[in-house]
Amino acid sequence: MQRTSAMTSVQPDWENFYPRPISEKIPFFSKDGRLYDCLFAQQFNRELLNHLFETANKLKTVTHRKDGADHVSSLLSDKRAMLYFVQPSTRTFMSFLNACHIMGIKTSEIRDTTTSSEVKGETPEDTVRTFSSYVDMIIMRHPAPGFVEKTAWLMNRTGRPVPIVNGGSGKDQHPTQALLDVYTLYRSFAGEIDNKHIVMVGDLKRGRTVRSLSYLMKSYKGIKLSFVSPKEFRMESDILDFLRRHDIPFTETEDFRGVMKTADAIYMTRIQDEHDKSGESKAVDYSPFHFRQEHLKEIKKTCVIMHPLPRRHEIELSVDDDPRAVFWRQERNGMWARAALMAYIFGVDKKL
Amino acid sequence: MQRTSAMTSVQPDWENFYPRPISEKIPFFSKDGRLYDCLFAQQFNRELLNHLFETANKLKTVTHRKDGADHVSSLLSDKRAMLYFVQPSTRTFMSFLNACHIMGIKTSEIRDTTTSSEVKGETPEDTVRTFSSYVDMIIMRHPAPGFVEKTAWLMNRTGRPVPIVNGGSGKDQHPTQALLDVYTLYRSFAGEIDNKHIVMVGDLKRGRTVRSLSYLMKSYKGIKLSFVSPKEFRMESDILDFLRRHDIPFTETEDFRGVMKTADAIYMTRIQDEHDKSGESKAVDYSPFHFRQEHLKEIKKTCVIMHPLPRRHEIELSVDDDPRAVFWRQERNGMWARAALMAYIFGVDKKL
Amino acid sequence: MQRTSAMTSVQPDWENFYPRPISEKIPFFSKDGRLYDCLFAQQFNRELLNHLFETANKLKTVTHRKDGADHVSSLLSDKRAMLYFVQPSTRTFMSFLNACHIMGIKTSEIRDTTTSSEVKGETPEDTVRTFSSYVDMIIMRHPAPGFVEKTAWLMNRTGRPVPIVNGGSGKDQHPTQALLDVYTLYRSFAGEIDNKHIVMVGDLKRGRTVRSLSYLMKSYKGIKLSFVSPKEFRMESDILDFLRRHDIPFTETEDFRGVMKTADAIYMTRIQDEHDKSGESKAVDYSPFHFRQEHLKEIKKTCVIMHPLPRRHEIELSVDDDPRAVFWRQERNGMWARAALMAYIFGVDKKL
Repeated sequence: MQRTSAMTSVQPDWENFYPRPISEKIPFFSKDGRLYDCLFAQQFNRELLNHLFETANKLKTVTHRKDGADHVSSLLSDKRAMLYFVQPSTRTFMSFLNACHIMGIKTSEIRDTTTSSEVKGETPEDTVRTFSSYVDMIIMRHPAPGFVEKTAWLMNRTGRPVPIVNGGSGKDQHPTQALLDVYTLYRSFAGEIDNKHIVMVGDLKRGRTVRSLSYLMKSYKGIKLSFVSPKEFRMESDILDFLRRHDIPFTETEDFRGVMKTADAIYMTRIQDEHDKSGESKAVDYSPFHFRQEHLKEIKKTCVIMHPLPRRHEIELSVDDDPRAVFWRQERNGMWARAALMAYIFGVDKKL
Repeated sequence: MQRTSAMTSVQPDWENFYPRPISEKIPFFSKDGRLYDCLFAQQFNRELLNHLFETANKLKTVTHRKDGADHVSSLLSDKRAMLYFVQPSTRTFMSFLNACHIMGIKTSEIRDTTTSSEVKGETPEDTVRTFSSYVDMIIMRHPAPGFVEKTAWLMNRTGRPVPIVNGGSGKDQHPTQALLDVYTLYRSFAGEIDNKHIVMVGDLKRGRTVRSLSYLMKSYKGIKLSFVSPKEFRMESDILDFLRRHDIPFTETEDFRGVMKTADAIYMTRIQDEHDKSGESKAVDYSPFHFRQEHLKEIKKTCVIMHPLPRRHEIELSVDDDPRAVFWRQERNGMWARAALMAYIFGVDKKL
Repeated sequence: MQRTSAMTSVQPDWENFYPRPISEKIPFFSKDGRLYDCLFAQQFNRELLNHLFETANKLKTVTHRKDGADHVSSLLSDKRAMLYFVQPSTRTFMSFLNACHIMGIKTSEIRDTTTSSEVKGETPEDTVRTFSSYVDMIIMRHPAPGFVEKTAWLMNRTGRPVPIVNGGSGKDQHPTQALLDVYTLYRSFAGEIDNKHIVMVGDLKRGRTVRSLSYLMKSYKGIKLSFVSPKEFRMESDILDFLRRHDIPFTETEDFRGVMKTADAIYMTRIQDEHDKSGESKAVDYSPFHFRQEHLKEIKKTCVIMHPLPRRHEIELSVDDDPRAVFWRQERNGMWARAALMAYIFGVDKKL
């Protein structure tokens, strides 16, 4: 892979670059017409989504046999990745780590900045550049919005850039979560996401996953969305405006039971009370936004129940045994979708 | 390997299952007549012990050459294990981790629950099920008695069970420690454990290892046991009753020097003062239960000195240089015994 | 590799051994005339340095292609290393870890002693010996001077020694840092270090790297050194005496600008205020010892700018874009030099 970046000479300063619309920034994070750094859900168009999903499907199938698994883990056996997760996230961390293992990528981990050289007065940018010296890819989760993007921007100005994959960047982006959600729809509907009725339930105001998922629905035709939430936690107006602009019909309601009957997918979410400012979550009765055993007979035989996990009480435990409860598969799909993304970034997707 | 479990439909609720005698529960953790989840020392009968020990011996021999080591590490190269160690235990952790490396199993680690999603209100069961999504085996150490067993029980009810290996479960079970202790006897006596006189020394009341070891002696013939301890820390009566039921002769004494002369193996243990309720350890003179340099001339030329480690002052440092001091080899035997167990669980033991 | 050590019977007690001159101790850490434990910068003579640098060069070249990388990572695929880093050092840790990955060595990590068995009253020596049971090499960083050496000394007395590599031992030694610094000179000057003028700048009194680098210059001919520092932080007299004894000319000055014009290499360092006793760093104006953008036009076209990193403000950020700024390559050279060292220790350097 050629490492020199065409963007070095033309890139503006970070302060000028950062506020630009994402659509304008995407080319800066591409190489030879392909996604290079994975930073925004908006980098996934329908063509790329389909390609990644087919790649993930192949990975699942091929690795079912040991010789296939050994072949897959030979494809990137010369690569080393660093998982730089300075914001706690065991679940996403483990998903990425095992995706690396599937692809044969060797891994190192930073999970705590207090032991790093940052204590010696180094800038975070120097720290990340140091770590990038040793590896071929950085998978990064960081609490500060924009930090992951800035890292990718900085690395692309150096003589030895490495791809940066966003594993969750503050509240703004978590593109591989969006990827795995759409992949789960893709698998659940045998590749046919068009014309589906998707119901999102819960704390839609503060949930990053439902926002990204709504956004990505613009890649599909005939989609109908229903947003079911307490009135305090309705979907934000920027997403609703986006849907109107793209002619995606939606309804907002508090009547979960009313809309579940026609749903093709029900996307449950927990209340995001870690974002409470003054205990507003406790003032809300969240129980109408739970999925219970009794609802299983209300929904379509083909309807799937999703959840980004972790859950609290939004889905009754006994529901897990129903074949339409796909959230555990969804969890696992994340690992495969991430493995597919790495295969794509390093250009070995064609060797499957 | 077929993943669907035959036990899903017949298994009772956990509250009814847990209190049953272990012998009744063993079939629930087996598959196709083989151990599937490794939870209890009682799962090891003489036949299985012999098979695991022969497998461990083969692993040691074959890996001595590089091509052999490469062959062994290709056997499970398609497997991923998670070491879920939420109770501190560097020693057991490292032993399992390197056993995985020997077998070519890729590993991920959970060593601290505070960074996990449990903080977001997830149940421990959901957390473990999440992690199981990414891997093919979970090796688990947990401070709560029964938690490892419950995990295995739960996983066996899902559509995608993975084997659970107990790496230490509260005070109740640490089956691979028992395995490595008997393996060390097996190696020390060239496979002939029958008719040996085994002396256990120290805090027998609170030491998990001496309890398991006593139990497993029922698999061998003509065994004679001597328990040497301060009277405050004598072997518990449940074990003594068990030995009586199985006609295994034993003596209890405070006279270490008296019994060491006829010993074939001396199993030293440290005082377990972390279990003190009110400083009772300090009230005891533990020095008569130390093995000193001067004792080396008292014991048989073929007698081996064992210790589960870590030690404090129970064995004088200069004893380490005597060839009969096998506790460092015992430590290493643990890694090989664990590697053999994994080879067995995944059915590649025949490929050695 | 034969594991029995010839030194067991002849070695004196640690208390007698430790204070001896390093030159006398080196044979105890060698095997078959080759370095076995890597403890002191003084173990590297010119012949060994050249051999390691040529090995590192080969590793860099060969791994450029995937089949070459796969070949290299097959060379030590049967080896397991433990990184025992109980003193925080993410940078050195990551460099060693990825060096292991390049060579195909499997790794385990100890990065915090509080979870280890040391809490159960075990001696540090027993702890390290335990960990050595599982692996073929220990890479160790420890805050206590002499601890790494003592570990190597102890291991060499056992029946199963493993090589010990010093990853930083208190203030006294950090041999692989010295190795990578000289390797960077070697690469920057196409293998010709003789007759160069090397300028070291900053806190020379308390910087371990400039001390080791000065020492290793005795292996080369016609070297001229300039030490540029605040008068409070001048190079210590033991090093100056050493240079005089070996007829290596040096000058001391506070005039950075005056000496930079003739420099072939400028080695920048940060102020080591973590070693302050009473805030003496704040009393010093360190700005005359910074390298700025404006200096780039003062120095030779072939002069290289080095820094052991992390940096604070010693080198202006915009300097990074100049091709003579080699400190990021220096960082990466460390990984290759360490990989070469491992190849050498295990005797696979000839298979490249």
